[in-house]
Amino acid sequence: MTAPSREESGGTKPHAFSSPEIEAVYRAIRSRRDMRHFLPDPVAPEILTRLLEAAHCAPSVGYMQPWRFIRVADRNLRTRLQELVEAERLATAEALGERGAEFMRLKVEGIREAGEILVVSLMPGREQFVFGRRTLPEMDLASVACGIQNLWLAARAEGLGMGWVSLFDPEALRALLGIPDGGHPVAILCLGHVEQFYDAPMLEQEGWDQRRTLDDLVFQDAWGRHHRD
Amino acid sequence: MTAPSREESGGTKPHAFSSPEIEAVYRAIRSRRDMRHFLPDPVAPEILTRLLEAAHCAPSVGYMQPWRFIRVADRNLRTRLQELVEAERLATAEALGERGAEFMRLKVEGIREAGEILVVSLMPGREQFVFGRRTLPEMDLASVACGIQNLWLAARAEGLGMGWVSLFDPEALRALLGIPDGGHPVAILCLGHVEQFYDAPMLEQEGWDQRRTLDDLVFQDAWGRHHRD
Repeated sequence: MTAPSREESGGTKPHAFSSPEIEAVYRAIRSRRDMRHFLPDPVAPEILTRLLEAAHCAPSVGYMQPWRFIRVADRNLRTRLQELVEAERLATAEALGERGAEFMRLKVEGIREAGEILVVSLMPGREQFVFGRRTLPEMDLASVACGIQNLWLAARAEGLGMGWVSLFDPEALRALLGIPDGGHPVAILCLGHVEQFYDAPMLEQEGWDQRRTLDDLVFQDAWGRHHRD
Repeated sequence: MTAPSREESGGTKPHAFSSPEIEAVYRAIRSRRDMRHFLPDPVAPEILTRLLEAAHCAPSVGYMQPWRFIRVADRNLRTRLQELVEAERLATAEALGERGAEFMRLKVEGIREAGEILVVSLMPGREQFVFGRRTLPEMDLASVACGIQNLWLAARAEGLGMGWVSLFDPEALRALLGIPDGGHPVAILCLGHVEQFYDAPMLEQEGWDQRRTLDDLVFQDAWGRHHRD
């Protein structure tokens, strides 16, 4: 018999969740997928509200809360969004050159099928916010992305899939939704029920690219130096 | 007695987590804080590995996985980081004008105290990745922010606090850590044990700014239009 270590007795971890709670958080993180295939079933309004509240719990640089959400309920507007994405899909295929044909075989959005479509935009007037952004003004986008990741993980726990589509001309989308000058849309989110979640990222399953090994991404004290170097 | 609805019977939600699991995910989302106050206790290496794996589970635009992590183990290097942040703190106070003095009273980093310091950088060579970035090249940063949010939520579940510091000159930090041309550091993460988590965002507690009401951030079909308009 050995005495419990300080770790095991909770001495240094009084704020840790219970083991099943910790596992649930990791389960959401590991099983969340960037979805492109959806069922048309509607998303319950109370779930949508919970997901938006989860997004609004995100950290933001200087507490600026730069995220704005436009729910697309109108079917004609949804069609217009889909057309914007299709135009950019073709332009991307052209820009990809030799991988263009391979790209064109991928499903890159579920705008027609998904139960809900949300456009996420950076608010106008962000230049007034200097805290944490004097040298890194792009931290506003980082904050919005943290909010979207919250939404994504909460959706996964609720059994809903989500996909972040960034294939669009932001100026055209801004005009379509009447987003004021200085605003900047960064995501078309497709959200909804799914037949099944992909076992691995879809672009891995489709052979577009491979998962990197974590060891290759982590250095110690200097770029390129590994722990055991 | 009424028959269970399709929702309750799980008909449309076969992929939902159990209720306690869903609650655990929301608990992490709601109780995560951008921390500036830390205890000096070390972070267990196996926990650090789990947290980095959680970050690496993030979605990335075109599956580019642009995140790189530099663990700062050397104490002298940590001091240099702290000096970089201090220089930017003074420059920010100057730029803030009339709110500069108020800003200077805030604790904006915990670099000396936190158990672990991680610098997160965008990899070099990102211009080769066009998928989802032709019109929105900044999606690489969005992907990295999703990874950092994963790490943040997993840390909260494990009972650890984290703070994202963006008060630094990225070129100076790049030089300090030998990050190659084209790489771009976006975060100094302070990670570690904490005495307690803030009940609300620290900048709210300190009166720097207030939390917006969710209804003011959500529109329907056009900017500024609300559901009941």
